[in-house]
Amino acid sequence: MECAKVKRVTFLGSGGFATSLAIHLARGNRACVIWGKDSDYCNAMAVSRVNGRHLPGVPIPDSVLITADFQKAIADCDLLIASTPTAYLRQTLDRVAIHVPDSLPVLSLVKGLERETLKRPSQIVEDVLGSRRVAVLSGPSHAEEVAQGRPTSLVISSESEDLAETVQKFFGFGPLRLYRNDDPTGVELAGALKNIMGIAAGLCDGLDLGDNAKAALLSRGLIEMTRFAVAHGAQARTFFGLAGVGDLMTTCFSGHGRNRSLGRWLATGMTLDQITKSTTHVFEGAFTTFSVADSARRCQIPMPITEAVENILTGSLEPWQAVKNLMNRPSGSEYDDLDF
Amino acid sequence: MECAKVKRVTFLGSGGFATSLAIHLARGNRACVIWGKDSDYCNAMAVSRVNGRHLPGVPIPDSVLITADFQKAIADCDLLIASTPTAYLRQTLDRVAIHVPDSLPVLSLVKGLERETLKRPSQIVEDVLGSRRVAVLSGPSHAEEVAQGRPTSLVISSESEDLAETVQKFFGFGPLRLYRNDDPTGVELAGALKNIMGIAAGLCDGLDLGDNAKAALLSRGLIEMTRFAVAHGAQARTFFGLAGVGDLMTTCFSGHGRNRSLGRWLATGMTLDQITKSTTHVFEGAFTTFSVADSARRCQIPMPITEAVENILTGSLEPWQAVKNLMNRPSGSEYDDLDF
Repeated sequence: MECAKVKRVTFLGSGGFATSLAIHLARGNRACVIWGKDSDYCNAMAVSRVNGRHLPGVPIPDSVLITADFQKAIADCDLLIASTPTAYLRQTLDRVAIHVPDSLPVLSLVKGLERETLKRPSQIVEDVLGSRRVAVLSGPSHAEEVAQGRPTSLVISSESEDLAETVQKFFGFGPLRLYRNDDPTGVELAGALKNIMGIAAGLCDGLDLGDNAKAALLSRGLIEMTRFAVAHGAQARTFFGLAGVGDLMTTCFSGHGRNRSLGRWLATGMTLDQITKSTTHVFEGAFTTFSVADSARRCQIPMPITEAVENILTGSLEPWQAVKNLMNRPSGSEYDDLDF
Repeated sequence: MECAKVKRVTFLGSGGFATSLAIHLARGNRACVIWGKDSDYCNAMAVSRVNGRHLPGVPIPDSVLITADFQKAIADCDLLIASTPTAYLRQTLDRVAIHVPDSLPVLSLVKGLERETLKRPSQIVEDVLGSRRVAVLSGPSHAEEVAQGRPTSLVISSESEDLAETVQKFFGFGPLRLYRNDDPTGVELAGALKNIMGIAAGLCDGLDLGDNAKAALLSRGLIEMTRFAVAHGAQARTFFGLAGVGDLMTTCFSGHGRNRSLGRWLATGMTLDQITKSTTHVFEGAFTTFSVADSARRCQIPMPITEAVENILTGSLEPWQAVKNLMNRPSGSEYDDLDF
């Protein structure tokens, strides 16, 4: 199968971002299919032409095929697009694997790390579907704005330059710009690690620490994220780009993401348990924090902000005490052990 | 004169940031003097103990000497702190130069570039006062928050590690953390170039382009700033830290800085001339944009965002057309010509 000939893509998962990209593709006369595992919901969406649960108020053009029948969804597909939450990726792939051709390339929109294994989405894809060309798409991208046709710039990253270029051509038109990057490991780690900083930003907001403190926290957080990622094979410069700094900005400054809300609630003195019981939300960022903090300890990677967030989440440290501890650490040179 | 023995510092200029740092130093029992060129204003401030013009509502402790008599101000001074606006730095230094000892080190808080020469503040200091040890302090730092004792992290940069460490010890206590950095060129260029992106952020807000566009603009803007700075001898990684990303975040997301307001007004269709006439503000960022865009052209450094801001400022391009042009540029790989 030649990447250069991508003519039709299939979204595995019917979330907000997948839907917004499908709408974008339809506007450019690109053929695409949305598959969702919930057949009742999918059938209703196919009739109403709106994804009321995840992207209310935006009509989905008729040219987008919406179906819960995977065999129908995958027919004539040149690119499978993984677009489930991290927690459901493996089981969803398991369910459809038998129908996925061996050579079909996969594009992942998934941001997160598998809880027990710390595996990146592209690794889960290859675990389940076998070795193949995989690309990842990331960057600052509220689904609502993509659907509204507002200007958005993303990063497309793959070890296969051919696949990256193909995806760039297929998605990059009109208000959507794609920049190529050759560090999928870094792009995926950035997409997961920024959720920890989202919680930290919410804590900062909730404690009313001010703009100076928040900018400092995020600058230092970015260096900490980079340190962890570089130790896991990523390139530092990826964190300097759209998937790093760019996504961190929207996560920590704009709108009210889930992780930021969690941080704000923690700042009021509520425990993670109390917060979890008061909402139906799943706080992926909390699990990412636990997994990453644990891994950082084992690898002896200094991550003071992540560790502080972990201790606040487990209730072993008061938010205010965490701030004091962070301020009282010895401050050396700006880059210490980060070589780039 | 040994840096390690700094006991008393003198602020050359009585702006908001200088005043907030003087208040911070006084809280740590460090001796400091504020000198201002406007003797009436200085004398009034010495009596009222408030800098009503630049930092209203925050009392200045009695231990801070406030004077318009430079010979009095410089007596027993171990560190001169340049804290005037860029546009007045050279003339202010000229005025006091005869009283400044040859070996007295200078710390600059000045963010900007000299209009005609594109010189950095530390270069102006050495032009006027002669070769000496110079350090620069930068990072995300609203003066109000420093004065309120809210947590703030800054970068102290000097070619003299000894001077950087001395300043770090003198200023770094309580809510103020200083990280050392050995790239004063990068720190000073970051402090000036971010003003261009402040205007761009204001345009983005004013045109209501959305969070995705703003994050993309700033990510790409950061890379553009870095490209220019590296071509002028700076280290790329400085832009990854507090003086780069950190300061860019506060400039573009928090409060309503002057440059952001300028961008917002430009977005309404007003011309720079109309805006300038309607306010007493001096828009340093506009002059920085003209100087940097001109220099970038001469050095053949691609700076599409800076160029767009320049063309909007001169009235040769409508803001909306600028956005369209930026979106329609060919998008290649994320780092193209930026080696780091």
